[in-house]
Amino acid sequence: MTTFPSTNLHDVQHLLKAQRWAELRAVLAQWPDPELADLLAALNPVERVLVFRLLPRSISNTVFAYLNHDEQYELLSQLNNDETRQVLADLNPDDRTQLFEELPGQVTQKLLNLLGPEDLREARQLLGYPEESVGRLMTPDYIAIRPDWTVAQALEHIRSRGSDSETINLIYVTDANWRFLDALELRRFILADPQQPVEALMDNAYVVLSAFDDRERAVNAMRRYDLPALPVVDSDGILVGIVTFDDLFDVADEETTEDFHKGAAVAPLRGSYVETGVAELVRKRVPWLLALVFVNIFSGAAIAAYEDTIAAVVALVFFLPLLIDSSGNAGSQAATLTVRALAMGEVRARDWHRLLSKELIVSLLLGLAMAAAVALLAFFRAGPEVAMVVALTMSLVVIVGSSIGTILPLILQRIGFDPATASGPLITSLADITGVLIYFSLATWLLGLG
Amino acid sequence: MTTFPSTNLHDVQHLLKAQRWAELRAVLAQWPDPELADLLAALNPVERVLVFRLLPRSISNTVFAYLNHDEQYELLSQLNNDETRQVLADLNPDDRTQLFEELPGQVTQKLLNLLGPEDLREARQLLGYPEESVGRLMTPDYIAIRPDWTVAQALEHIRSRGSDSETINLIYVTDANWRFLDALELRRFILADPQQPVEALMDNAYVVLSAFDDRERAVNAMRRYDLPALPVVDSDGILVGIVTFDDLFDVADEETTEDFHKGAAVAPLRGSYVETGVAELVRKRVPWLLALVFVNIFSGAAIAAYEDTIAAVVALVFFLPLLIDSSGNAGSQAATLTVRALAMGEVRARDWHRLLSKELIVSLLLGLAMAAAVALLAFFRAGPEVAMVVALTMSLVVIVGSSIGTILPLILQRIGFDPATASGPLITSLADITGVLIYFSLATWLLGLG
Repeated sequence: MTTFPSTNLHDVQHLLKAQRWAELRAVLAQWPDPELADLLAALNPVERVLVFRLLPRSISNTVFAYLNHDEQYELLSQLNNDETRQVLADLNPDDRTQLFEELPGQVTQKLLNLLGPEDLREARQLLGYPEESVGRLMTPDYIAIRPDWTVAQALEHIRSRGSDSETINLIYVTDANWRFLDALELRRFILADPQQPVEALMDNAYVVLSAFDDRERAVNAMRRYDLPALPVVDSDGILVGIVTFDDLFDVADEETTEDFHKGAAVAPLRGSYVETGVAELVRKRVPWLLALVFVNIFSGAAIAAYEDTIAAVVALVFFLPLLIDSSGNAGSQAATLTVRALAMGEVRARDWHRLLSKELIVSLLLGLAMAAAVALLAFFRAGPEVAMVVALTMSLVVIVGSSIGTILPLILQRIGFDPATASGPLITSLADITGVLIYFSLATWLLGLG
Repeated sequence: MTTFPSTNLHDVQHLLKAQRWAELRAVLAQWPDPELADLLAALNPVERVLVFRLLPRSISNTVFAYLNHDEQYELLSQLNNDETRQVLADLNPDDRTQLFEELPGQVTQKLLNLLGPEDLREARQLLGYPEESVGRLMTPDYIAIRPDWTVAQALEHIRSRGSDSETINLIYVTDANWRFLDALELRRFILADPQQPVEALMDNAYVVLSAFDDRERAVNAMRRYDLPALPVVDSDGILVGIVTFDDLFDVADEETTEDFHKGAAVAPLRGSYVETGVAELVRKRVPWLLALVFVNIFSGAAIAAYEDTIAAVVALVFFLPLLIDSSGNAGSQAATLTVRALAMGEVRARDWHRLLSKELIVSLLLGLAMAAAVALLAFFRAGPEVAMVVALTMSLVVIVGSSIGTILPLILQRIGFDPATASGPLITSLADITGVLIYFSLATWLLGLG
């Protein structure tokens, strides 16, 4: 449940057409910022600029930050230079960094030129950090105080600087050279004796990130320590900014979506699936599909090698999809469980051993269960000998498929690749090759077809 | 980078054996809470209880909350009743609810009996909410003020109640009947004129949840509005608690892990993969594996129906894995993209149309690309006629597989099921059936084998 405006899109469009500006302003004033962003996204470009210009400045910059990057870019291209300068100057530094990251280089250059010298220096500095680093996520807007100040002086400083800072719930203590010393919750100051020195509140219990850390470290730190903001230092220990939980939550969502896509052999998309165009989708899906066609040729070749066996007992082909699919399914399960556990940091180096031996036992049990299920069918369809081949094959291919699914991500991680590359399609294609080989060689051997 | 204690596990174990309690206490005092939890998890049960008892009470309850539920349960079973009572009483209400949720009913009952009457009433109330509801996540520890108070009175109240509340960065305004009116950031009070009435600060811009809402709504609200805590009301609009971002982040992680597992046809696990035992893994993986064996029988039956065709042109079998795998791979891609987009709330009802038509175009292009890739191989291996059959089949099965992958999650969502049930293994098994039918019927028709 949220506060919903009593008007809607059509009302707004009606007021726009009728040019009833004052009324429209009053209506818009009731809308929460994210709903205003949705409204802007739903309007056509002409209407959008009109509405944006009607918003009071204090609101328009927050609303702008809620738009996605394509929408931001579209809107900026319709505003004149002065308006653009204003929007950019009002944006929080971390939102500004993210916008610039997404735009083509020339556009970014043009926009940078519209910034005032202070903002320009800051923007350049933030963009100077490596992609996907903590530095790119941080905002330099935080509140810092000295340890020798009293609590009363600190509160006064907080009062005077409060509206500039992205968060004032966490106050950072630095020395005269801005070197980071400690992080303190605002509540400590409210609850403390105003004449105490800040130093008395310090407890040296803090978590701090490096601006050059990968952003996933920041996400994991937030997960672990439950802090709504984390301080960021450079290589000299100077406090250069903070990252807030909302940005880290967005990063976690992005990284998770990437993992989902990789798990299905799709190269990560730039934006949301609904908004991705045909060209990008083809470009991001076809590489693995073609690569796997190549892998699947080996399954075909394996089958070709056993053409005589197939010709002799055509009934064997009936069970082929069932067997190799089961191998791939069990392998997909194992791979997904392993990749997700690795991504959540649940697997330490010493767990590999346990994981693998556990998987061997589990897949043995799964294989036996499934062999029992198909043995009966095979018996009635093709006789006892084929039934034996099928049951034996099922047990083996489930174990082999599961083992591939568990081992491949671990190996990828060990050699420095993303374990999520061990996608379902890759595992199933590999399981197909081994499945075919196992099935037909067992059949050839046990049915005396050699 | 975090503050790491200068001692380690072995040092601690050494001090334990030597019974150097005072020294050990001093050492432990330097450790941050999550690291203490890790330490406890790494010790054996006897050592663990000893260390836990050495911790000052103010720290031991926070550390306890960092343990996972199995570890919490193990520790509790070793403490005596008085110690257990103390641990439970000190736990935050939301952490307590989560612990009780995970324990067997009898154990929960026994633990509830150790609570004081206040805590018992509260625990019962929280557990009274439906599973996976917002009510189960919330804590009743928040700070509420009246609109007619002055800012100074409010700050005084905050000072006196501050240490009890889970968060004081957000202050909630209620009327005399505890009916929710507004949510205000603490910073507003710091920055405001102390003689103003609270009412003057109110802006009626808030987001509120119902205790009966599904917890996913809470997660999405946090994503959207970037708030570190959200107020929760009951059906009468009475403020009953708050949910904080750290708990919602954990919920998001859990729900995501569930989606990953479902996407691979694994029923969601109770805890982490590394700690899940063989029995539970088999139990959670075998149902879908068996169900899919059943589905795959249809592929087998389809092949059996074309035994004559296969016998006539055995070379056709060479391409079978390649074709049906490609269909399944394209389908897995489509399904994963669709399911993830649905989970992130990116797909509105009116997008379905666009999604489906886009997928048709994309899969046509993918199919043509892959048909071109295999046509040459088929030509050299089996002649122009088989090459034509293979190329035509490839184009068709990629389109059919992708369509199944896109449509199935949407249909599942429409009829009220979890779209994530459209797992990779399910999609590939369905794609196999259609792939076999298309391939062999095309071959029979075009090669005149009917």
